[in-house]
Amino acid sequence: MAENVTPHLSDLLANSPSNWGKWGPDDEVGSLNYLDAGEVLRGVASVKSGKTFTLQVQMGNPDGDPVWPGRTGAVRYNVMDKGHYLGGKGVDFPGGLEYADDVMIMYLQGSSQYDALGHTWVGDQIYNGYSASTTTGGLDKASVLPLAERGIVGRGVLLDIARHRGKDVLERGETFDHNDLMAVAEAQGSPISKHDILLVRTGWIGSFYTTPRDEFYADFIEPGLTYSPELVQWFYEMEIPNLVTDTIANEVTVDPANGVVLPLHAALMSRLGVTFTEIIALDELAADCAADKQYTFLYTAAPLKVVRGTGAPVNPIVVK
Amino acid sequence: MAENVTPHLSDLLANSPSNWGKWGPDDEVGSLNYLDAGEVLRGVASVKSGKTFTLQVQMGNPDGDPVWPGRTGAVRYNVMDKGHYLGGKGVDFPGGLEYADDVMIMYLQGSSQYDALGHTWVGDQIYNGYSASTTTGGLDKASVLPLAERGIVGRGVLLDIARHRGKDVLERGETFDHNDLMAVAEAQGSPISKHDILLVRTGWIGSFYTTPRDEFYADFIEPGLTYSPELVQWFYEMEIPNLVTDTIANEVTVDPANGVVLPLHAALMSRLGVTFTEIIALDELAADCAADKQYTFLYTAAPLKVVRGTGAPVNPIVVK
Amino acid sequence: MAENVTPHLSDLLANSPSNWGKWGPDDEVGSLNYLDAGEVLRGVASVKSGKTFTLQVQMGNPDGDPVWPGRTGAVRYNVMDKGHYLGGKGVDFPGGLEYADDVMIMYLQGSSQYDALGHTWVGDQIYNGYSASTTTGGLDKASVLPLAERGIVGRGVLLDIARHRGKDVLERGETFDHNDLMAVAEAQGSPISKHDILLVRTGWIGSFYTTPRDEFYADFIEPGLTYSPELVQWFYEMEIPNLVTDTIANEVTVDPANGVVLPLHAALMSRLGVTFTEIIALDELAADCAADKQYTFLYTAAPLKVVRGTGAPVNPIVVK
Amino acid sequence: MAENVTPHLSDLLANSPSNWGKWGPDDEVGSLNYLDAGEVLRGVASVKSGKTFTLQVQMGNPDGDPVWPGRTGAVRYNVMDKGHYLGGKGVDFPGGLEYADDVMIMYLQGSSQYDALGHTWVGDQIYNGYSASTTTGGLDKASVLPLAERGIVGRGVLLDIARHRGKDVLERGETFDHNDLMAVAEAQGSPISKHDILLVRTGWIGSFYTTPRDEFYADFIEPGLTYSPELVQWFYEMEIPNLVTDTIANEVTVDPANGVVLPLHAALMSRLGVTFTEIIALDELAADCAADKQYTFLYTAAPLKVVRGTGAPVNPIVVK
Repeated sequence: MAENVTPHLSDLLANSPSNWGKWGPDDEVGSLNYLDAGEVLRGVASVKSGKTFTLQVQMGNPDGDPVWPGRTGAVRYNVMDKGHYLGGKGVDFPGGLEYADDVMIMYLQGSSQYDALGHTWVGDQIYNGYSASTTTGGLDKASVLPLAERGIVGRGVLLDIARHRGKDVLERGETFDHNDLMAVAEAQGSPISKHDILLVRTGWIGSFYTTPRDEFYADFIEPGLTYSPELVQWFYEMEIPNLVTDTIANEVTVDPANGVVLPLHAALMSRLGVTFTEIIALDELAADCAADKQYTFLYTAAPLKVVRGTGAPVNPIVVK
Repeated sequence: MAENVTPHLSDLLANSPSNWGKWGPDDEVGSLNYLDAGEVLRGVASVKSGKTFTLQVQMGNPDGDPVWPGRTGAVRYNVMDKGHYLGGKGVDFPGGLEYADDVMIMYLQGSSQYDALGHTWVGDQIYNGYSASTTTGGLDKASVLPLAERGIVGRGVLLDIARHRGKDVLERGETFDHNDLMAVAEAQGSPISKHDILLVRTGWIGSFYTTPRDEFYADFIEPGLTYSPELVQWFYEMEIPNLVTDTIANEVTVDPANGVVLPLHAALMSRLGVTFTEIIALDELAADCAADKQYTFLYTAAPLKVVRGTGAPVNPIVVK
Repeated sequence: MAENVTPHLSDLLANSPSNWGKWGPDDEVGSLNYLDAGEVLRGVASVKSGKTFTLQVQMGNPDGDPVWPGRTGAVRYNVMDKGHYLGGKGVDFPGGLEYADDVMIMYLQGSSQYDALGHTWVGDQIYNGYSASTTTGGLDKASVLPLAERGIVGRGVLLDIARHRGKDVLERGETFDHNDLMAVAEAQGSPISKHDILLVRTGWIGSFYTTPRDEFYADFIEPGLTYSPELVQWFYEMEIPNLVTDTIANEVTVDPANGVVLPLHAALMSRLGVTFTEIIALDELAADCAADKQYTFLYTAAPLKVVRGTGAPVNPIVVK
Repeated sequence: MAENVTPHLSDLLANSPSNWGKWGPDDEVGSLNYLDAGEVLRGVASVKSGKTFTLQVQMGNPDGDPVWPGRTGAVRYNVMDKGHYLGGKGVDFPGGLEYADDVMIMYLQGSSQYDALGHTWVGDQIYNGYSASTTTGGLDKASVLPLAERGIVGRGVLLDIARHRGKDVLERGETFDHNDLMAVAEAQGSPISKHDILLVRTGWIGSFYTTPRDEFYADFIEPGLTYSPELVQWFYEMEIPNLVTDTIANEVTVDPANGVVLPLHAALMSRLGVTFTEIIALDELAADCAADKQYTFLYTAAPLKVVRGTGAPVNPIVVK
C-alpha cells in the first residue's frame, strides 16, 4: 500500500456515525451512559457460581511489562523497609511498629488501563467536540477522571477469537471484524446483546511473557479488529459501552486496507465514545470459560481517579 | 500518658490471637481466604437497585491529596498532547490520529489503597511468620500482589459512626470500638454477619477537602478504632476479611490508653491477616444509605498488581 | 500601580537592544561568546592564593530546598544499600564487593542552575529568533545543552550589595540597579570590567535556611535588580556574559514601576543572550572576600549536559 | 578461572594499604585532602592557551546514555512550554513573559559522575571505618556531599592509553596497570607527578555511541586498570587524589587473574579514599592533546551537592 494514498482520518470518517452531543454538551463518559442501573442488574443476574477473576497484568514484573513502543513499564522503589531498621534508620514509633513504604513511577497507559475519551483525536476536536487544546498539560475535558468516578459495571461477554480459530495466539497483524465477533459468540452459545461489554481475546498479551522481547516488538503490529464502515455501524447500533482486549491498542495496529494507524481509536472511541480497555489478561478467564461453557458474567472495573489523566491503570474483576 | 511506660507491641500482643499458619505456610492473603465463592454469592445477593458507587479519592487533585505526614500526593506530567502537535512535535501517525500521554509519580500508599499484609510488622516477622528482612528492597512475601491477583468480592456493610453520633466528622482522636460497630449496625437495621467487609465512616477524609491543611495536619491524630483484647477477639471470631475506612490509617493514630502508635496494624493486619483499606471516600455512599436505608451491598475491589508492592492504589466499586 | 496599565513586554522592550543574529543564525549560547580564550586567561590571572569555593546550594536538604513557588525540591531514593545485603537482597559480586545506589527526581530549575537561553520568551520567538514552538516537549533550540557543552570560564567579580548596605539580607522586594553594582564594585576596590561574570549577593538564599517557610514564601517577592532602559544598555555595552545571583530569579520578582513580572528575563536573557545563574550560595565566598579584600577570581561552571533541558543544575567553582 | 577459587576481597586486600584515620575520624573526602591550595596553584600554573573542554557525556540522549547494566539513563519531561500557552494553559504573568519548565528522573550514577567514598565497601565498614549500615536509605557518612562541598581543583594529566596502543578503543576486557600509565606519560612527554589527577582514556565511552547496544552490553566487560598489590602501592605512594576514566566503572570489570569484580573500588576507593570519576568523555580533549602535545592542564570539577547521595553527576572543565 503506497503511503501517499493513505487517507486522512477526517476524510475516511467523514460520514461515520457520531455520538457527540447525544448526552449533552458536558458529557465526558460517552457510551458508558448506556450502562444504567438496569444494565448493572443484567450483569449481576449473570452470576452463577461465585468464581472470580482479576484481569490486570502485573506491574513492574522483573521480566518486563508489555507496553506500546516508546513507553516504559512501571518502576517501584522502596523508601523504607526492614533494612532501614536493621541499620538504625527506621521511623521509631512508640510501641515498636515497623513498616515498609515505596514509590512508583509509571506511564498512565503503561499497564492494563482505561483510555480517557480524550486520549486520542483527529484534528482540533476531541470526544464530544471539546477543543483538542484542552489536552495540553493535562486533559481538562474527557479525562479518565469521569470514567473513574462512574466506574464500569455491566454484563461482560468473552469472545475468544484465538480459541475459536484453534490458536494459542493470533498471528502478527491478523485481523477480524464484527461478523467474527458475532460468529464466535454464536459458537460459544451466548449471542452478543445490546450494551454488552466485549472482552476480546487474541492471546497476544499472554504471548508477551513467553516471546523474546526483540521478537515481540519487531515490526510491531498487533492482531485485532479492523476498520470498516459496517463495523462502526454495528458498534453504533449495538450501543457497545466498552471494548476490552488483550492487546496493547485494542485494534490491528495498521489498517491493512489503507495504512491508517489505529482508525478505531478515532471511529469508536473519539466519535462514538466507546471506552477502550487495553493490555488485559484474559487467558485464565478464557480457560475457565472454555471449561464451564459460561461466557457471560458480571464485569466490574474502575480505573484510578487520576485528575486530568489521559488514562489510568485498572484491575477489573469478573464474577461468574 | 508518660512515654516511658508505653508498652512494646510484642508484649502488648503476647497473648493476642493469630492466624499465622492457618492457611498454610505459603499463605499471603490472610483473612481474604474467608471470602470464598459462597461469600461472593452472598454479596451478589445483596444487590437490589443496581445503583453503583466508586470509593477512591481523587489522585493529583490540584488542592492536594490526603496522605500520611511525610508522604506526598501523586504528581502527573503530560509527555504528549495537542500542544506538541501545534508546535510540530507530535508523533506523526499515517492517517493523522493524534494523542495525549502522561506519566505519574506516586507513593503506593499515597491514595485510596490496600495495604499488603507485609506492610507493617513487629520485630523480625511479618504476617504468617515470614522474615521481616524479606521486605528489604521490595516485599518478597505478603506483598500487595497476591491480594491484587485474588481481588476482593463479598458483602459489604457500611457502618456510619459519624452519622450515628450526629456529627459530620468525628473529633480529632475520637475513638470507638467493636461494640460501637455492632450498635451502629443494629441501629441501621443490618446486623454485622461473619465475613462481612466492614466500611467504617468517620467523615475524616471528607473533611480534608474543607479544612485548611495546617489545621488538618496539626498534631496529627485521626479518629478511629481503638485497641482492646476484646476488639481483637471480636474480629478474630467474626472472621472479618477486610476493614475499610475513610481515614488514612484505619485506626486511631495513637492509642489513648497506652501511647502505642497504630496497634491494630499489628493485632489485626499482621497477626490475623485482616486486609486494611485506607483513605476511602464514603460520604456519597453514606448519604445514599441514609436515604434508602440499605446499608449492605456487593463490594468489589482490586488494587493494582504491583510486584513486590507494600500496597497499591484501588478504586473500589459498591453495587447496591 | 493599577494592573490594567501593566505594559506588555513586547511594548516595553520595543526599542531595547538585541543580540539576535550577532553570532549567526545558529547561535545558542549568546553572551557566552564573549568568553573567549583571552577572557579565560584573564580569569586565570586573577588567581592568587589557591583558595576554592563551591557555590551550589544543597539538593534534597531534609529541611527543604529553595525553589520558585510551585516547583518542588529534589527527592532521592536508595535502591541498594547495606540493608539489602543484611536482608539477603544485595547484588552478589564475586569477591564480595557491596554497593549503594540511588535515583533522584528533580525540577531541572529546582536547585542552583543555569537557565537555557530559551527558558523564557515574549511572544512567538525565543533567543536569536527561533520559534517559541521549538520549546514544546523539550527545547530543540537554545536549550541548556550548548551552554553545558561550552562551559563557563572567566573572571568573576563578587558584588556584595547586602554587605555594602550594612544588611545581612536585603528586604523583600528591595531593588538596586547597574549604578549600584558599579558603586559597590568601586567601594570594594575592584571596578567592573567588560566581560566580567557578575556574582551579585543579596543574602536572600542564605536567609531561606533561617526563615520559617511560610514567611519566606508569603507574598513572594525577592529583592533584586530592577529594569530600566539604562540598565539594559549598560549590560549591552559592558557585554556581560553571565549574571549570577543568590536569589531564585536573578531580579526583583515584580517590577515596582509597572507591575511586570521578571522583565530582565526578557530584556537581558532573551534579547541579549545574557546567561542567568540562579539560587547560588554566596555567603561563604562573600565572607572570605570581605576578609581578604579580593573580590575577583577565576569562575568556572558547567551545568549538566541535559539534552533539550530548559536549564540544568550546576555547582560552580571559584578559585581565588 | 574456576569461580570456586575466587578470593574474597577481605582476604585479597588483607595487607593492602589504607588511609583510614589518616585525616581524622571524621574525614569523608579521602585523597582529595591532598589537593591543597598549593596543588590548586600547580593546576592553575599549567594553563597556557585558555582553551577549555567540558567532559560530561550528554544526559537523556535520544539514542541512549551509557550506564552500568541494570541502571537506566536520565528521562526528562516538560511541564510547561509554548504548547501550554497556545492551548491557553500557560501561567499568565503580568507583562506577558512565558517560560518552559521540566523535571528529570535519573540514577545518580547514571551519567558522568563522582562516586561517594561510601558508594562501595567490603564487609561491615565503608571508607574511614564508618559502619556500612550508615548507607541504609542514604549515605549518612562519606556521601557525595562532602566531595561536592569541597570541589576538585588541581593539575590533571591525560593518559591516552588507546592512542598509545594505536587503537581507537581498547578491546573488551583489555587491561593495563600503573607501569602502563607511567609509560604513556613518559611517551607523551609529561611524567606523572604526585597528586596529579589522572584522566585515563580507553576510547570505551566514545565507542558506545557508534556500537549497536546489544553488542556494547553483550558479556559486559570493560577495559581498564587491573589489580595488583604493586599498583595499589603506587597509587598510595603517589597520593593520587582522583582517578577519571572514560569507562563506566574505572577498572576492568572482572579481574582476569582471579575473577573478582571491581577490586579497585575496594583497594583504591574504599581503602585509600581515591575518588572515582566515571563515564567521562575524553575523546575531544585527547584529540587536542595529541595535536598540541600539551597533556597537563587545570582540572576543575564539582559534582552536585546531593544530600546523602551515593554519587552525583558532574560536568568537569579542563582549562589548557
